[in-house]
Formats: sequence, C-alpha cells, structure tokens
Amino acid sequence: MRDSSLKPSRDGFQWTEATGLVAGVPTLGLIQPSSHCNKGKIYDVLVIGGGYAGLTASRNLALADNQVLLLEARDRIGGRSWSSNIDGYPYEMGGTWVHWNQPFIWNELRRYDMTGQLEVSPRKNVEGGARVTVMMDGELLHISHDEEDEVIESAFKKFINVDGQFARSIIPYPHDIEFNMKGVLSCDKMSMADRMTQVASQLTPLEKNMFEGFLAITHGAKWDEASFFELLRWWALMNYNYADFMAIGLTYKLRCGQSALARHIFDEARGTGQVDYSFSTAVATVNDNGDLVEVTSRDGSTFRARRIVCTIPLNVLHTIKFVPTLPVLKTEASLIGHANQVVKCHAEVANPEMRSLGATNYPDGKLTYTFGDGTTPAGNTHLVAFGSSLPHVHLSPQTDVETTKKAFEAFHPGMRVKRLVFHNWHEDEFARGAWEWLRPGMTTKYLQALRERHGNVLFASSDSSYGWRGFIDGAIEDGGRVSRVVDQELKAAVHRHQFDVNSKL
Amino acid sequence: MRDSSLKPSRDGFQWTEATGLVAGVPTLGLIQPSSHCNKGKIYDVLVIGGGYAGLTASRNLALADNQVLLLEARDRIGGRSWSSNIDGYPYEMGGTWVHWNQPFIWNELRRYDMTGQLEVSPRKNVEGGARVTVMMDGELLHISHDEEDEVIESAFKKFINVDGQFARSIIPYPHDIEFNMKGVLSCDKMSMADRMTQVASQLTPLEKNMFEGFLAITHGAKWDEASFFELLRWWALMNYNYADFMAIGLTYKLRCGQSALARHIFDEARGTGQVDYSFSTAVATVNDNGDLVEVTSRDGSTFRARRIVCTIPLNVLHTIKFVPTLPVLKTEASLIGHANQVVKCHAEVANPEMRSLGATNYPDGKLTYTFGDGTTPAGNTHLVAFGSSLPHVHLSPQTDVETTKKAFEAFHPGMRVKRLVFHNWHEDEFARGAWEWLRPGMTTKYLQALRERHGNVLFASSDSSYGWRGFIDGAIEDGGRVSRVVDQELKAAVHRHQFDVNSKL
Repeated sequence: MRDSSLKPSRDGFQWTEATGLVAGVPTLGLIQPSSHCNKGKIYDVLVIGGGYAGLTASRNLALADNQVLLLEARDRIGGRSWSSNIDGYPYEMGGTWVHWNQPFIWNELRRYDMTGQLEVSPRKNVEGGARVTVMMDGELLHISHDEEDEVIESAFKKFINVDGQFARSIIPYPHDIEFNMKGVLSCDKMSMADRMTQVASQLTPLEKNMFEGFLAITHGAKWDEASFFELLRWWALMNYNYADFMAIGLTYKLRCGQSALARHIFDEARGTGQVDYSFSTAVATVNDNGDLVEVTSRDGSTFRARRIVCTIPLNVLHTIKFVPTLPVLKTEASLIGHANQVVKCHAEVANPEMRSLGATNYPDGKLTYTFGDGTTPAGNTHLVAFGSSLPHVHLSPQTDVETTKKAFEAFHPGMRVKRLVFHNWHEDEFARGAWEWLRPGMTTKYLQALRERHGNVLFASSDSSYGWRGFIDGAIEDGGRVSRVVDQELKAAVHRHQFDVNSKL
Repeated sequence: MRDSSLKPSRDGFQWTEATGLVAGVPTLGLIQPSSHCNKGKIYDVLVIGGGYAGLTASRNLALADNQVLLLEARDRIGGRSWSSNIDGYPYEMGGTWVHWNQPFIWNELRRYDMTGQLEVSPRKNVEGGARVTVMMDGELLHISHDEEDEVIESAFKKFINVDGQFARSIIPYPHDIEFNMKGVLSCDKMSMADRMTQVASQLTPLEKNMFEGFLAITHGAKWDEASFFELLRWWALMNYNYADFMAIGLTYKLRCGQSALARHIFDEARGTGQVDYSFSTAVATVNDNGDLVEVTSRDGSTFRARRIVCTIPLNVLHTIKFVPTLPVLKTEASLIGHANQVVKCHAEVANPEMRSLGATNYPDGKLTYTFGDGTTPAGNTHLVAFGSSLPHVHLSPQTDVETTKKAFEAFHPGMRVKRLVFHNWHEDEFARGAWEWLRPGMTTKYLQALRERHGNVLFASSDSSYGWRGFIDGAIEDGGRVSRVVDQELKAAVHRHQFDVNSKL
C-alpha cells in the first residue's frame, strides 16, 4: 500500500536525522475536505467521536436510514487506533492487535474481505539473532525466546491464580461479568501492587523482573493505581492461559494498518449518502432540551440532532459541559480517570540482527518492553516499544528525542536508530491516556453508571464496553450496541408521530 | 419460558408411555400463518431456506431496504438447529452449543441481548453420582470425570499431533484455510480410519475405545468415509487444545433454546415490513433466465426475484432442478454428500443419580456418547445421546422405540426412560444428514466450487462457510457474507438503471 500522496494528520510525531522532529505523520485516516455538513439541519443522530465506536455507530445508523452527523475533534478517523503510513509501511500508533476470538472486529474484517490482511508480528519467526535481552539492575542478560516464554508464563500463572482455578471461578463469562460477585469485588479493590505483595515471595528475581517489565503492555500505570481485576479480565478474555494471551493479545496485526479498516467503515457510512461530518471540530457543550440536543463546538458552531451518541474517552468526558449536568458517578469516574499512561514508540533501526529482539528493561528503563515487529521498505528493522509517562521513568519523545534514542540503544551496543514514530497518548488532549485500565475499585463502582444514557445522550466507548473493554473489539461492540438502541427508539418515535397525525385527521 | 400454547411442528418425534410415539413436537420456531406473500410480485431477493443462513440473509437484505421473499420447505424456521419446547423445557434437536469465541453467533446474542441466556450444560457440576460409564466389549466400567478428561485428552493429542505442533502448522488461521498447502491436502485425503491406523499402537485400549466413542459428537460417520482434516479444523477452531475443545464445542447452550434466537432474527426481519414468506413450500426448480429467476415449488406455485440466495443443504442440493444446470463440481459434491449420519436423541429419565452421567458405548452400542444435560420441569434427568444411522449400529428411534430405550437402559441397571425426543436427520428429506462432515478429499476438491455463484443464484450455507463450517456460527457468517454481495450488486444495478434513464431523457 505504497501511497506517496498521503498527507499528514496533525497527530503523531516523526523524527529522522535528516528532518529532525516533525509533528504530524501521514495516514490513510486523514479526512479531506474536513467538513461536509449543513449547520441548519436537524439530524436524527449526532455522533461525537470518529474512533471505532463512533464510526461503527455512524455506519450502522446510516444503513438503518437515519440522517447522521459525525463530529470529530481531530483531522482524522480512528481515535486511539490509527496507523501512520510512511513510505507505504504502517506504524500502529495505538490499538494494533486483532484475533478471530474478538467477535466484533472479526465481523468487520470479514465484512470488508480483510481477513487476508492478518500478519504475524514476526519477532519469533526470523532467521538468526533470535534472542531476548533483559536489562535488570543495570546488567544485560541474554536468553532465548523459549526461556522468555517459560519465565513469563511461570510468573503470570502465579500472579493470576488467586482462586486455584486461574481466575475461572471469578470470571466464568468474560463477556458478561457479574460485578456483585465477591471475588470480583475483592480483586477489583486490589491494586497490581497489592497482588505483587501477595505473590512476590513465590517469584524468582528473574520472573519478577521480566514479568513486571512485560506488564507494560497491559496497564502502563503506577502499580498501586492499576486494578488487579483488569488483568484477570484480560486473562479470561484470552482463554485463561499464557499461550493464548500472547496469540490473541500480541500476535496478529493488519498488513494494511488499522487506518485502512477505519477507512472502510467511514467510506461505507459515507456511501449511504446519509452521513455528514465535520472534522477538527472539538465539542465544548452538549445541551439537551428534552426534545432536541444542541452541540456547540469550541469555535462556537452549533449542530442539532434528536439523539447524541457520545464516544468521548473516559478521561476526556469531564472537559465537556453537559446541560443538564451529568450524573455524579459519570463525572467522578471521568475526573478520576483510568490509569494507563503508556507511551508507544516505534523505531526504525539499521540492525537486521534486531528483527527478533524481545527486551524488557525494568524497573529503571525508559522503555520497559520492546520487540522486533517487522522490516521496513528500506530493509531496516522495525522495533515497537512501550514506555510510560510515569514520573520516575518519564518518557517524552517529543521533548527529548535523544533520551528516547538512548532507550533503544540501551538494548544493543551497535543499535543505530534511523527513525522514531510515536504518539504520546498521555499528552493528547483528546485522549488523556492510552487504552483503558481502571484504577482499584473503579470497575465495580463506576462501570454500570458509565454505560447509562443521559436523556437523549447515549454513550458508547471501548472504555466502558462489555466484552473486550479497552480493545478495538470493545469499541466496535459498543458502537453497535448503542446504534441499535438509538435506531429502535427513533423508529418508534416516527410510528408514534404517524399515529398522532392519523388520530388528528 | 413455559408456553403451553405452543403448537407442534411436523418435525421431530416424541415418545412417552402415555402417548406412545407422536410425530411432531411443539416449538417456538413454528410460523403461523404459514404464508404471507404476493405470488405476482417480483422480489429483489428470494431466499431459499429458513435456517440460520437464510434468516440472517433475509434480515440483512431487508434492513438494507431490499424486498425479500423467504421460502422454506418446513413449517418452521431454524433448519438443522431448532429446539422443541415441551412443558417449557427446550430439547435441542440439532445445533446446540455456542461460545463467545464464535464471532458471528456472538454478535447475534449481543444484538438480541441474549448473552445472559448462556447456561453451562451441567454434566460435571451436579452434586452426587458424578461418574462416567464406559461400555467396552460388553463390560461396564466406571471412572471419574477427571479420569475421563485425562483419557480423552491423551488420545486426542496423539490423534491430532500429525505435525509435532498439534496441527498449528497445518491450520495456522482456522478462519482462512489455505487449501493448497501440502499438509492440508494430505490430511484431507486421509480418512479418520487411516489416521487411527497410524496412531493405534500409541493408544491404550481404554484410550482407543473411549476416544472412538467420544468422536460420535464430531463426525458421526463411518470411519473410512470421514475426512481426518475436518477434525484438525475443529481442533484449530477450538484453540488447538482439549480443554477449549470441550469448553467451546460442548458446554454452553441457550437456556431459552435455539428456536428463541431464530425467532428473534425472523421477527426483526419481518418487522422491517420488507420480508414476505411462504413456509411448507419445498422448491422443485430454479430457473434463471439471466434477468429474473423463477422458482417453482413442488405444488407448482411460482415465485420471481432478481437474485436467489440458496441455502439448501449440501446433501439436498442435487434434488433441485436448476436451469441452467449447476456446474459439475457442485452437483458432484452434493451427490457424494457429506458423511455425517448422527441421530441425536434426548431422554427424560426418572434417575436423579444420572444427572452427571457421561457415557460411551463403543463399538457396538446404539448410542456411542451420552451425557446428563439438565433437569426437566418434572424434576427428571435430561440425557442427550448421539447415535448413528450407520448399518451395524443403526439407530432408528421412530421405527423402534424399544431398542432406543434399551440403549439408554444399557448405561445403568435402574434406568427408567419416561420420554424420548429426537430428530432423525439422516431420514429428513430436507437435510439428508446432520451437520456437515466432508468425506476424504472433498474439502480440497469441492469447497471452493460450492461457494461460487451460479448466475443470479448465490449460495450460503454452514456446509461451505469460512470459519465455523458445520456450526451455527458458520451459517450466520455465510448468510451475512452473501447478503452483502447481493445488496451491493442490486444497489449498483439501480444506479446503472437510473443512469440509463437519465441518459435517455
């Protein structure tokens, strides 16, 4: 998918020696022209947010013959899942991995005949140089990928096995969790730090160190601010075992990049002729007068619709003014926010021997978990790495490229970084964090409230979805769920109206 | 869901001491009145078959604003998946088990807010009497459920492990199989009997016997007529391990019964106002004149549409006359047919100690695999059993109730059979077999051809679907896939027509 004509979004950053740091990277997700709408029109539904939840809701509502307006603060679709496409090669800036056990994204991949786009992230399948680098207390240690699996699996099982059944008794139905269950309540109150205190004595020093580094790909938060229950939930969704955890959670990506899928949904929605849109339109206020809802953007433009599908991320919701004001639990949950502060950073390095790198650098590394993720068109190695905005290991590539390069170089004496590509989700005003990872107690206290409607405003988000919450699949599921509710009540309203008109005749 | 007003379908049989053998059992899937259509009308799409593939296609096409006519030979919806509802208790007559790793049925369960209907088939979770009965060479052997799992798992792994990777190298992507791969070709040529010859010496006599009995729930065919590849495919779909094979394939059923789900799809389709239907209308000929297709039923009625979605089961397809005639590969595949001759039979028995029965009776038992599946409203135990129409163990409950009762009684000296409920799929003229299990070589030779369209006739079926072929999930997937193709080309045709009209003005 080499497309040199792709224009940059404002989002993301790229650094090369030749260009230095440049804000904005090219993406299939950029929408131009940025606006196509009728400000005087009363739409059936106004969808706030063009991530997967909003795109799915827009498309489904349009297919069901509703007039839809999609508002998006960014200049692109995809929300927290998008790919920058550089010289025809996609770098996934957010949500990446997919699997056929994720029912809602699998439906989309089948819908657009894209299942053939699945590609195994090749870190283990490369000839030569296959190895894992562990940085621990300043020392470099090299082990094999098989040893890596053994160490992580052993630690993971001890960490998870709170019930002697590897969490099966706590989450028997990962797509329908009973929040009132005793085991759920107690595991949700527990932080990751609390759980580590319970099991630390059962872990070898290597197990503890590598596992803690590895978990950067899950919570990316301070250990005492991340709920232990959320890890149980991931584990249950991934079939309660380590091999599937890796296969489902961290193996298959789309050859064409996530933005190609988002584009398919957007294009189908637009193809109905029922969807208008306005990008670069950040919402400031949502005013529900009981009959119609008026949405005002930061620049003072107003838009009106009968229903709102609000997909604003949890950590951003409290920045929008709602009239009437949101219920206390919703606002409180948003103000507290989820705890994930991952910084995801790609590097293109001139080291073919790094293609099968797996690396952890914990507790003091700026990049806690890093691995080989492919070969770029220039023949270089693509590494993907997970850092954090947490204070003591704070990684901020856009303000300190040199430190970021050094974090990659730490894994290998001859590492030559040619390019960095990244999105700092924590400092993104429209995300304020990466994928959802709730703090201790939040799931059981707030989740149900987050799903509830507020008058004519309905909420859909991967942050509060049912099954794969925190994943692309959850966004698509929740966008679909809410679009059905909205469609049914709009159609019922039309029937009532027709009945009223007929009664009066 | 006690509903004493439910009327019987013509399908299925029930026996009790009081009534003797009665043809037809009550079901939510019965459609009355049986017809609501306009014979003079030219429909956009005529869907042949009201199983899950046809229901999904009808609903999706109707939601996309096409005029649909659904023809069904039976008096009920559901095809090879339906539940008879007796005194408010569902007996699943065909396809039963579902799981959240089946992406397309999971979407449907979420769509209709039915995920809470999941119920664990309780055979292992009952207090007291938990045991497995193995009948082998006329001897009765009792073991625990844990021992049963150990024995079956051990045998299964040896049987499957043709590549040293438990089939992962042969089917890395279970939803997108590459039929030209060497391993696929050679495993598809192999029969189950061939594979048993290869591994028999590695199995203990108990492993061999119990595993062979257990496999009645998979192929239900003569061992030399069932492709070994099909078992690899099931194994791959079920995450390449025995625990998940049982969890995904044989654990979760719907409390309300499958016909409740089918009914939701049918009712939504009808609710659009775009779907007409005619039940008890068996199709005799399909005549495609290139512009319109005329379908004639056995009673001589004719129906016309622009496109046909044909969901007729593989084993029945050759009984329909197509003009122009079908391609040789399609007809040949149908004449050969798949090999599954399972007879599924439920018993209500007055033995609470049988609630956790697990039992195999191989090679000479009429019921090779039987287990406890719940408690009926009368407080009796529900057993579900798998027999076969194969000659030497031929089970034919509708012609020989006594032999069928004796087959249950063989598992336990005091067994008291109060009721039998069954559907003999092999002798059902509209199915001619149970779920799909292809013969050696058929997957690689015929599957692609079965999926191909024939002029204005498109084919959708669980027999030839992509992912969960042979399962409910595959039917829903394929109905969805084909409905998108049909919808897109009908809409494109409208655009072309409008263009032509405008050109002439």
